[in-house]
Amino acid sequence: MKRIAILGSTGSIGRSTLNVIENNPERFQLLTMAAGSNTEAALNDARRWKPKVLSLASEQDAEKVRKQLKDEGLGEIEIAHGQAGTVRVATHPEVDFVVSAIVGVAGLKATYEAVRAGKEVGLANKECLVAAGELITAEARRQNKPLLPIDSEHNAVHQCMRGGRMNEVERVWLTASGGPFLNTPTSDFEKITVEQALNHPTWKMGQRITIDSATLMNKGFEVIEACRLFDMPPERVKVIVHPQSTIHSLVEFNDGSILAQLSVTDMRLPILYALTYPERIESDLRFNVLDLKRLDFAPPDPDKFPCLRLAYEAAAAGGSKTIALNAADEVAVAAFLKREIGFTDISKVVERTMNETPDRHPESIEEVLAIDAQARSLAQEQLPRHVAR
Amino acid sequence: MKRIAILGSTGSIGRSTLNVIENNPERFQLLTMAAGSNTEAALNDARRWKPKVLSLASEQDAEKVRKQLKDEGLGEIEIAHGQAGTVRVATHPEVDFVVSAIVGVAGLKATYEAVRAGKEVGLANKECLVAAGELITAEARRQNKPLLPIDSEHNAVHQCMRGGRMNEVERVWLTASGGPFLNTPTSDFEKITVEQALNHPTWKMGQRITIDSATLMNKGFEVIEACRLFDMPPERVKVIVHPQSTIHSLVEFNDGSILAQLSVTDMRLPILYALTYPERIESDLRFNVLDLKRLDFAPPDPDKFPCLRLAYEAAAAGGSKTIALNAADEVAVAAFLKREIGFTDISKVVERTMNETPDRHPESIEEVLAIDAQARSLAQEQLPRHVAR
Repeated sequence: MKRIAILGSTGSIGRSTLNVIENNPERFQLLTMAAGSNTEAALNDARRWKPKVLSLASEQDAEKVRKQLKDEGLGEIEIAHGQAGTVRVATHPEVDFVVSAIVGVAGLKATYEAVRAGKEVGLANKECLVAAGELITAEARRQNKPLLPIDSEHNAVHQCMRGGRMNEVERVWLTASGGPFLNTPTSDFEKITVEQALNHPTWKMGQRITIDSATLMNKGFEVIEACRLFDMPPERVKVIVHPQSTIHSLVEFNDGSILAQLSVTDMRLPILYALTYPERIESDLRFNVLDLKRLDFAPPDPDKFPCLRLAYEAAAAGGSKTIALNAADEVAVAAFLKREIGFTDISKVVERTMNETPDRHPESIEEVLAIDAQARSLAQEQLPRHVAR
Repeated sequence: MKRIAILGSTGSIGRSTLNVIENNPERFQLLTMAAGSNTEAALNDARRWKPKVLSLASEQDAEKVRKQLKDEGLGEIEIAHGQAGTVRVATHPEVDFVVSAIVGVAGLKATYEAVRAGKEVGLANKECLVAAGELITAEARRQNKPLLPIDSEHNAVHQCMRGGRMNEVERVWLTASGGPFLNTPTSDFEKITVEQALNHPTWKMGQRITIDSATLMNKGFEVIEACRLFDMPPERVKVIVHPQSTIHSLVEFNDGSILAQLSVTDMRLPILYALTYPERIESDLRFNVLDLKRLDFAPPDPDKFPCLRLAYEAAAAGGSKTIALNAADEVAVAAFLKREIGFTDISKVVERTMNETPDRHPESIEEVLAIDAQARSLAQEQLPRHVAR
């Protein structure tokens, strides 16, 4: 029986993880969970799953949930809150496996502490590897515990890498759907509207990741994640456009053999893989090979998508530059969504912020968070409303 | 240093194996070789490689080569001939790895003896698994030595299977180029000429395998090979048409993940893989992922290609039925090439021969060869010239 903690239990990955646990009650037990501010969902989960610890973002929500559960005779559930609460959920002594799925830098500390506590960790949070990848992977190596990627691309790479040894891997090829502007001429990029950018051809996702997919910044983040997770230099992590998103990624070995992973686009599959690794267990998440029909591929256009270039630069520099890349992008995308800047300004804000961020290699999560805060204010200063003042 | 025996040294796989050895002199040493009747090539190889044993098909050729080499001061090379000579090459005590690449049933005995002698064996000979697969794989399991497939499809499956455990494999998907008649209406099949059938769209191969590709019998043989090699029932070995032949095969796991292998279409890659397994070593046999462009897939049409159906029936029955399938097909294809029967008669000759072959499970290579000879004469009896007499 694997006892599981979920960081981000009310989000999309959290729901999928609960579904996987529900479908395999003989293998998995939900032990602890950290929700955000959705107290209604957190309460329902507490009733259904009876976790040992339930953490909420704010003290006020925690108080409310504690009282309600006590009234319902569920007072034995330990209620926590804030960063300390998330860390408590992640490091509970009975937990075997931590699913890290809190969006943003809020999940960094708890994920790092889970690794330090020798837990197996499944990573669905981008910032853990983009902003704090060097720290977290170094700690996982010290603990000799696997960091299992829970997103379709890196999970695919992880599967393909089993076809050889680490020192036999020549290149990693991340597939990219290409976003809505794959076939838009570069000259039209300045006129791209928020509505156009939010209209992703194949995926229904949150606003930031949809814009990051349109700029290919999201693929750039994945390049950095692959560099950290698989200990590869950026020049050996490549991107290829594949609009159907059927092949989730490929691994090229030193003999010239290439392995690719295909599957349904359902996050429960990488979650199940991470939870059961090194085993695989039966699921009904089936892709019928007879439905393959046609797959297309094309090289990405670096002139059209400067964010991808910036991500490669950040991957090579590491440390503070990757923190700045992520922080500035979050600020710039928010400004684009508020129509304060244009689509092509996003990469400009990110590039200037990266340039102004001193080259540093943080040695603690606290230092990562400080650089992140600094980069956010540097990015704010690039915005026109700031200049106008 | 891995010491290698090549059975079929003057054929295409033999030449590619010698090239792989030549490119990796620090890893591989050619120790013994069995040629056919090409004495010129065998002599040149003896001069270049100085094998411990060189075997030729006929006693006469062996005598000629022995004398010539003695005159050249290469009298220390042991010259052998016939089946005993091939067995000597395959079981030489200093040999580590045997590449089995003699076409037809002539290679069966030596390959079986190599497995019995505890050698690692790389299989490029179809009959070893189609006609004698049960015997040879059972012996390899007894010896606890790997049988490594040297053809692009099964080599691809072997690579993909490393992504999980044997009991986690749900299905094997062999890709098929589809041959020259993929888009020909079934109603036109009776009129197919020898010239049309020999005009394969993507591969330049020998005559029999080209016709076997046009009828999909070759893919049928591969289904049987996969069943034997990977110990899978035929219903879990599937075929999918993929005209570009870029993906060499796929493996579907029980969790729904599918791994695929891609590479250049150069036999040196599966040879290198087999020789170095479980390691991989650097090669220049590169496929550029950026050249992928477009891949197409379609289900095979069972009505158009009855040979594929017959192969599945033979795979399920095993033993004498698979021997009859191969023997009758060889007879029928030869008759088609001599214009004695039409294209659609090939499957009819095979089906009648299979039906008339008693169900038996041979327990020795000699018994396999006896059933093979009997099936050949049964097949001959189906031919019109026989009926006409």
